[in-house]
Amino acid sequence: MKFEVFITLKKEVLDPQGKAIENALGSLGIQGIETVRQGKYFSIVIDEKEKNKAEKIVKTACQKLLANETIEEYSFKIVK
Amino acid sequence: MKFEVFITLKKEVLDPQGKAIENALGSLGIQGIETVRQGKYFSIVIDEKEKNKAEKIVKTACQKLLANETIEEYSFKIVK
Repeated sequence: MKFEVFITLKKEVLDPQGKAIENALGSLGIQGIETVRQGKYFSIVIDEKEKNKAEKIVKTACQKLLANETIEEYSFKIVK
Repeated sequence: MKFEVFITLKKEVLDPQGKAIENALGSLGIQGIETVRQGKYFSIVIDEKEKNKAEKIVKTACQKLLANETIEEYSFKIVK
């Protein structure tokens, strides 16, 4: 079962890397960019056919390793 | 107009960071992980109401800054 996992900074957390990208895009002459926020993306294949069990594995992976829940949020969806 | 942008390594490109995450998850005792591939995720707000124009801005940003098209692919979708 294949998952797409997204890790994003919580709304109230500043994103200096996103700000740097905004500025860089401005310097490159690309206009119309209002805000950029950066996150992480993972494509994860789980060796488990049962949806509930597979989701539990992904959730554990997010909580234990992929996301820092103090400042980040995670979400995921099944691709196939 | 808000976009979600995904940058992923091309299929044929090795992803050592993804491999490291696979191993780390194994070390943490999380079983059932087959493969992990890491990518980047951006949430971008464009100050443009016309869909075509907004998409063009995002595409330019991907090509000029966000993605390295030699080894990476980009995709995006409108969130709202």
